[in-house]
Amino acid sequence: MFRLLGANRATTTRAPAMLRRLLSSSVETMQQEDSTTRSKVLTLETMNPNVRTMEYAVRGAIPIRAEELGAQLKKQPGSLPFSKITPCNIGNPQQLNQKPLTFLRQVSALMEYTDLLSPEMIDGTRKLFPEDAIERAKRNLSYVNNAVGAYTQSLGIQEIRENVARFIANRDGYPADASQICLTTGASGAVERVLDILVSNPNVGVMIPIPQYPLYTATLAHLNAQAVPYYLQEESDWQLSIDDLKRALNEARTQGTDVRALVVINPGNPTGGCLLEDNIAEIVNFCEQEKLVILADEVYQTNIYTGTNPFVSFKKVVSKLGSSVELFSFHSISKGMIGECGRRGGYYEAVNIDEQIMGQLMKMASVSLCPNVQGQMAVDIMVNPPQPGDASYEQYQSEVGAIYESMKRRAKKLAAAFNSLPNMSCNDAQGAMYLFPRVELPQAFVDEAVSRGQQPDAAYCMQMLEATGISVVPGSGFGQVPGTFHFRSTFLPPEELFDEFIDGFRHFHEGLIKRYSS
Amino acid sequence: MFRLLGANRATTTRAPAMLRRLLSSSVETMQQEDSTTRSKVLTLETMNPNVRTMEYAVRGAIPIRAEELGAQLKKQPGSLPFSKITPCNIGNPQQLNQKPLTFLRQVSALMEYTDLLSPEMIDGTRKLFPEDAIERAKRNLSYVNNAVGAYTQSLGIQEIRENVARFIANRDGYPADASQICLTTGASGAVERVLDILVSNPNVGVMIPIPQYPLYTATLAHLNAQAVPYYLQEESDWQLSIDDLKRALNEARTQGTDVRALVVINPGNPTGGCLLEDNIAEIVNFCEQEKLVILADEVYQTNIYTGTNPFVSFKKVVSKLGSSVELFSFHSISKGMIGECGRRGGYYEAVNIDEQIMGQLMKMASVSLCPNVQGQMAVDIMVNPPQPGDASYEQYQSEVGAIYESMKRRAKKLAAAFNSLPNMSCNDAQGAMYLFPRVELPQAFVDEAVSRGQQPDAAYCMQMLEATGISVVPGSGFGQVPGTFHFRSTFLPPEELFDEFIDGFRHFHEGLIKRYSS
Repeated sequence: MFRLLGANRATTTRAPAMLRRLLSSSVETMQQEDSTTRSKVLTLETMNPNVRTMEYAVRGAIPIRAEELGAQLKKQPGSLPFSKITPCNIGNPQQLNQKPLTFLRQVSALMEYTDLLSPEMIDGTRKLFPEDAIERAKRNLSYVNNAVGAYTQSLGIQEIRENVARFIANRDGYPADASQICLTTGASGAVERVLDILVSNPNVGVMIPIPQYPLYTATLAHLNAQAVPYYLQEESDWQLSIDDLKRALNEARTQGTDVRALVVINPGNPTGGCLLEDNIAEIVNFCEQEKLVILADEVYQTNIYTGTNPFVSFKKVVSKLGSSVELFSFHSISKGMIGECGRRGGYYEAVNIDEQIMGQLMKMASVSLCPNVQGQMAVDIMVNPPQPGDASYEQYQSEVGAIYESMKRRAKKLAAAFNSLPNMSCNDAQGAMYLFPRVELPQAFVDEAVSRGQQPDAAYCMQMLEATGISVVPGSGFGQVPGTFHFRSTFLPPEELFDEFIDGFRHFHEGLIKRYSS
Repeated sequence: MFRLLGANRATTTRAPAMLRRLLSSSVETMQQEDSTTRSKVLTLETMNPNVRTMEYAVRGAIPIRAEELGAQLKKQPGSLPFSKITPCNIGNPQQLNQKPLTFLRQVSALMEYTDLLSPEMIDGTRKLFPEDAIERAKRNLSYVNNAVGAYTQSLGIQEIRENVARFIANRDGYPADASQICLTTGASGAVERVLDILVSNPNVGVMIPIPQYPLYTATLAHLNAQAVPYYLQEESDWQLSIDDLKRALNEARTQGTDVRALVVINPGNPTGGCLLEDNIAEIVNFCEQEKLVILADEVYQTNIYTGTNPFVSFKKVVSKLGSSVELFSFHSISKGMIGECGRRGGYYEAVNIDEQIMGQLMKMASVSLCPNVQGQMAVDIMVNPPQPGDASYEQYQSEVGAIYESMKRRAKKLAAAFNSLPNMSCNDAQGAMYLFPRVELPQAFVDEAVSRGQQPDAAYCMQMLEATGISVVPGSGFGQVPGTFHFRSTFLPPEELFDEFIDGFRHFHEGLIKRYSS
């Protein structure tokens, strides 16, 4: 198990004190180094201190304990008060039995075993695969001279980049250019690359929302840069307040930080909020005026659950306004209704980025050779699904529709359940895959946790896991207003198990509140 | 096209002057910044200078020009003195029509489209897939609860890590432990991660061979660390001289560099050399004594072509000697007879590494979530191929054997061709996928290149490309003894086209030598 460092290592973290407090997910102290390890070259003392400072709660102490408990259940069924682990710590839908989209997998299978397309085998293949999957596999194979086992161009397969550009143009009603699109190993790899090129020295600051997805603080810590937090407004469905952006920017610049970029996660992770177009326009104008590059994390763009807050891309608003603001927009095959997390595919679009920087980004891509080819191919299917008239059209639509409707129902149901409980309140999810409920922890519970050297919300989540098998992530892993406590839960458990999941949680929560309030 | 910087930017590169000269693959100067780009936030001036300094010649100016020429040939066939591009710049066998291993692809296809294993479809599936592929797909699917579309554990699928450990134990005759094995996105991602944790400040040095695979210099430049070069001995089949290691280490330490690690690439890239066991033992003892962590890049461990120089792993020698030296060993599915470059799979084994560092490496892995699942599954097949008695055993053996024998013939044939030419000499490949011939460029050619601000070997390779369509990488991209000139070529063109490939090269080379020697 790895040790989370940070809050107690003032000399090695660059985050300002407040941010450290906001983000600290552990108050564990570093163990005294064992004398037997002193002879090693590579130790906690000698290693890259920026790596040591990184924290990533989504796969932190609680999910690691969940794995241990899962292993125990496998070995000794019945040895715990629950029969299975329910991993709500990460947006990983296929882990929770979401069925993959059939067409995508048919095409992938045919590209893997291309002999299925040979004259000798094609008759047998036609009995198992629809004609449009066969045609699609042939077409996509032609992009790579039939070799999905070869490195592609570093920026990704040219034809797929063109298809992505067409998808964006259709989505937004404004042109997009394949030369500005780069296929990547999921959105995470893309975000890391863009932050990497942006950070030229330890004084560079990047504005991030609080709460945020901890990829951003982890990467900024790794790059030894300054995370400049701004707050999302819980009381107004996690909208972004321009006033708070201004406050945060001014404070950081007054302290001498060279603030260069702004991260927006829309739809929001962990919040589930979805920004309105006017709000986005304000942000774009603000960033243009203040000379900030925008990083728009838009991986949940098809996870939209209300009519009031449709998804609007930053690219669209930038185009509409004719803004010259520099923008990177990120998308992924891991989310939406596709949910192909394990495949590691995504892309970014660069808008108004200096041409020489585009060359540098290409060089960075080339050192890693290329994103995995099936991940690229899945991006192609995401942006270019079966069309009306295609053999697979109806099935594709119906699979996507069923996943979407079910997610929407589960989002609503879980938020309602949270809101029905004592000491809890929760905004509805307008988008994404998460709820971020607020918990009023009884003072006695908070005191007990602090006296044990634990974050109160982390203690709450760990007790939830030990009592119910449900694994969520404490709010301190994402950042929250000091003195408030939250956790992030996906609403991805299968619908048929949803009542059981909610009951288990309710039982734990009510018991805890009762116990500590008396 | 991106601009390669480095040699002329003394203020932004950390490599010592000699190394910069050794590695510089371009003397192009940075363009004066266009005044229109001055208003951008992110420019060559403001970006991360360590990224700007990186160079990666394997996908540098020459392959980029090759892509342009390839596009031209597609549009206007017959417009160039050759009919196709022959990409010998990168070890990418399936790009050059090497057929993938059937069993691996059958299993992958079944894991993609799992409906093929359903009771409704299994009869049709049995007509197209052998029984052991079906069984294998079921077994590997059971590792991930049937979900190849879900994130796995960050370190990789536990059962596959155990299979890798068994493979290593069988290979070496010494135990291996799954907890010390981490599955990765190819070997490149693994090398980057290990160097990243090793480099704690700009004074840290890592010894690298010259010539080297430029991933190492690129990553060290990116991390703002010191590359400490030692020379491989061209005159003795690129063996590693302990005396030169000592010289290089002493020089660097005398200059105050904190030298912490040694990179060995065995079998060698770009050299094709393969180290003898005694030599490895000397290196292990040297590193233990000098407190250097060993990074053993062993991705070509099955590409071995002579009886005299079998592959011996560093892990085996460390175990045999009972050494406590810290070792990371890297392996990949991209090379060997598998050649699944586009899939991005690999692993590293950590030996004698501090337990807390293992935790930190796990945290680093978790930020990227997990390596793509099909890449992990291919590692499993690599370390655990069909066994005698399995339906696919004969075919698997025969496919692997045919690729191996053909590579061996092509290696020999290409070296013989190089050695038959004026002004050229070349060591045979004992291993890997490359030859690194030395070219005695006529003084008139060298003078002309220098007067144009070009590296002579880069000019030679660019002229080769323009004349023949053959794309290779100049020696300056790997490093070479000053005043000598080399290039790296794979021997991967298909065997049936090999004579044509050699003839094209011979014609170009003889013409150039004649022209400039008169």
